[in-house]
Amino acid sequence: MMTSNVFLDEAAAILGPRGLTRDAELVSPWLTDWRGRYTGKACAMASPASTEELAQLVKLCAAHGVPIVPQGGNSGMSGGATPDETGNAILLSMRRMNAIREIDVEARRVTCEAGVVLQTLHEAVEEKDLRFPLTLGGKGSATVGGLISTNAGGCQVLRHGSMRALVLGLEAVLPDGQVYSMLTPLKKDNRGFDLKQLLIGSEGTMGIVTAATLQLVPALADRVVIWAGLPSLGIARSLLLHCEDMAGDALEGFEVMPQACLDAVLTHLPAARAPLEGRHAWHVLIEVVADSASAATLRERCETMMAEAFDKDLVDDAVLSTSETQAEAFWLLRESVAPAERERGPAVQHDISVPVEKMPDFVETTVPMLEAEWPGTEAVAFGHLGDGNVHYHIIAPTVTDGPAWQKNEGKAISRRVHDLVTEWGGSISAEHGIGQVKRDELARLGDPVALSMLRAVKNALDPQGLLNPGKLV
Amino acid sequence: MMTSNVFLDEAAAILGPRGLTRDAELVSPWLTDWRGRYTGKACAMASPASTEELAQLVKLCAAHGVPIVPQGGNSGMSGGATPDETGNAILLSMRRMNAIREIDVEARRVTCEAGVVLQTLHEAVEEKDLRFPLTLGGKGSATVGGLISTNAGGCQVLRHGSMRALVLGLEAVLPDGQVYSMLTPLKKDNRGFDLKQLLIGSEGTMGIVTAATLQLVPALADRVVIWAGLPSLGIARSLLLHCEDMAGDALEGFEVMPQACLDAVLTHLPAARAPLEGRHAWHVLIEVVADSASAATLRERCETMMAEAFDKDLVDDAVLSTSETQAEAFWLLRESVAPAERERGPAVQHDISVPVEKMPDFVETTVPMLEAEWPGTEAVAFGHLGDGNVHYHIIAPTVTDGPAWQKNEGKAISRRVHDLVTEWGGSISAEHGIGQVKRDELARLGDPVALSMLRAVKNALDPQGLLNPGKLV
Repeated sequence: MMTSNVFLDEAAAILGPRGLTRDAELVSPWLTDWRGRYTGKACAMASPASTEELAQLVKLCAAHGVPIVPQGGNSGMSGGATPDETGNAILLSMRRMNAIREIDVEARRVTCEAGVVLQTLHEAVEEKDLRFPLTLGGKGSATVGGLISTNAGGCQVLRHGSMRALVLGLEAVLPDGQVYSMLTPLKKDNRGFDLKQLLIGSEGTMGIVTAATLQLVPALADRVVIWAGLPSLGIARSLLLHCEDMAGDALEGFEVMPQACLDAVLTHLPAARAPLEGRHAWHVLIEVVADSASAATLRERCETMMAEAFDKDLVDDAVLSTSETQAEAFWLLRESVAPAERERGPAVQHDISVPVEKMPDFVETTVPMLEAEWPGTEAVAFGHLGDGNVHYHIIAPTVTDGPAWQKNEGKAISRRVHDLVTEWGGSISAEHGIGQVKRDELARLGDPVALSMLRAVKNALDPQGLLNPGKLV
Repeated sequence: MMTSNVFLDEAAAILGPRGLTRDAELVSPWLTDWRGRYTGKACAMASPASTEELAQLVKLCAAHGVPIVPQGGNSGMSGGATPDETGNAILLSMRRMNAIREIDVEARRVTCEAGVVLQTLHEAVEEKDLRFPLTLGGKGSATVGGLISTNAGGCQVLRHGSMRALVLGLEAVLPDGQVYSMLTPLKKDNRGFDLKQLLIGSEGTMGIVTAATLQLVPALADRVVIWAGLPSLGIARSLLLHCEDMAGDALEGFEVMPQACLDAVLTHLPAARAPLEGRHAWHVLIEVVADSASAATLRERCETMMAEAFDKDLVDDAVLSTSETQAEAFWLLRESVAPAERERGPAVQHDISVPVEKMPDFVETTVPMLEAEWPGTEAVAFGHLGDGNVHYHIIAPTVTDGPAWQKNEGKAISRRVHDLVTEWGGSISAEHGIGQVKRDELARLGDPVALSMLRAVKNALDPQGLLNPGKLV
């Protein structure tokens, strides 16, 4: 189907000159996902300036049968914001809707539009001595709307939950162009099930998030970042329980990586130094935070916590950050694992979760299994042990032709990893979403009952199937 | 439609002799809701012993077009578990499915069946030094399945959220008899939107909850309950913010009542004593808790908090409980407000919420307005100020014929209260649900877009409309 000129003329009338473009130079950067795996086409790129403009556009699309691919910062990991190759769809940029409508300091919440970039949000609320407690690598481009649509995670989920837990109110344009408007949060509201949950994590297939009211927390007054070395992931899990007991809600991060990952990072960052003297099977980064009320005793509590961990044989060595610079240096090591791994050569990557308590066994069982089944590969797991979520990379043997290996062995390995995760009661997408990249694997491995519920709801809300077709389901 | 003997015979074969009865003596106590407002009929009462039995029964009902009315402890406030008067429906008691399948002490969670009574759950986890942090008046009969289906609230929502926030995993039988099985919690799972949210709060209209995995918290080591008197609800709200700042997550309860409510309670409980000497426009109950790690400093922190509240003119008088007996005595006063109000005579009751920050203005604006519009009535609001949720009763003039007043003036008053709540951006059901009692008011006042989403999802999952017909939507 070619998109009609009538449609484009009417869309231009709704959106104005800044709101619609077919200029290839402007559009094409947004037609490839940021990992460079997918490139699509679009009949035009729409950039509405308001919810009202978007609602009119969606009604027009419904009338003309034009598919819509919503996009925020185009920094998703699963190709969920890239159109297909037909060129039938309109690419919907939400980036112009970037107003921070209100920061309510007393109630600790912010209402902002979908196109607000995460880092901009962080900075705006910090000025009010508040904090939005979700962050991730792509914070310089990821938008609030994209973070909600993919239920983004990051490194503070342990304490604050993923995006779902932080959304208090939502505004969205539905597939028929009606506006769902529930921005003003009620702490208690029992008029049926919670409709906003249909939109959070549905990757733009049920509606287009236009604005949200988000939970804020008090600004950090201080933090201590601890780097520890220990002999096994099982002991890391025991250390996690120990820290949860002793630090309670002050524990905000608990990240793990094997020695091989740290080695790769130190190669990748020549100026960086290893936090500990010796080598350890596993390294753990622990973040403990304090607001102004609890800052005075923070360091002492962390020292007691780690001293007891030594007494219980839960760590072999550990160091506490003594400055914000050192805290940041420790985090830089953690955040450099993914780029350092990429530098090592071709690999297949997985973003998986299993129940938290099973993760040590899962990794210790499946790493040698996969390395044996594909000789020469190296399997590394790192990330959010506290959430039962690791990034699980299988690095190709050094001699291999990369692209061919990824296409053949790599694909087979991914199926095997996803089979194993499913056997262990886990998820093939812990935080990156399904998008295009895992859609077929979800169809293959997802619980048939859950999939049929998902599809029934999708068809009920979007009977024409115009919202982000080919993604998720 | 009369229910066929074929259906009943097949149901009996599935459920066995203990699982199906038509004995009026056994069935009739469950055909009237506990507030005595609705009485219905049923072709039989089914009491399945397992999820598998229930799944077979639901398939049979779907084949024969027999409606199903699920019921837990029959202690709901909105008639949501009472069948209609046709006798076509089967009443589904979930009370036989009452196993506590597993308490995982390390992970702090419990997996139990839908028929487990809340108080039984409390006792079972207390034995493991854990706590399920949701409680309410009907805890001796309310079941886990009912609490989930109605997204129950209570007096600890301020800190721990309503039922929705405590459900980690869910198992349910869907309208076609398929079993949705996601009991093992994953902290992170981004395979589409969160399906269990469709079932929580949907009052048995989308599926029948059969089991759940619930979040637990450490047992309480100590608590202090504070009773304070102050001049206005606006000041009560400032005191709430002060306590949130100073006590943080240790603040578990913040309940308010006007002097008139306390007077009624003291009449209702002749042995009880007023906590404070003088009379105050508003009374506040504040609960601050501690686990074993924070118990040592609890009293001192509460004393500092209240001393600073005095300095800021946020309270006129206050007393801290000095024993668990006294703490319980303070709570008994709070819990006796509803029965004491009922004793005062005919009234219409509302369970409403508005955004927390608007509640003082809402009450101070609408109480004199309603009392002026219906001369001789008395309007009282009490309850969960910290959640923006009060129970709002309008007591009839003393001279009136009760039932006639409730039917005529009472109904008009309720419409007026619901209109006002809607104008103020609030909810006509904060925690009691919609059921039968508020279904027409929801249809009248609910956001049309939200209602059409609700109905679209309901029709998609239950196209025959057999699950709890006539409730919610």
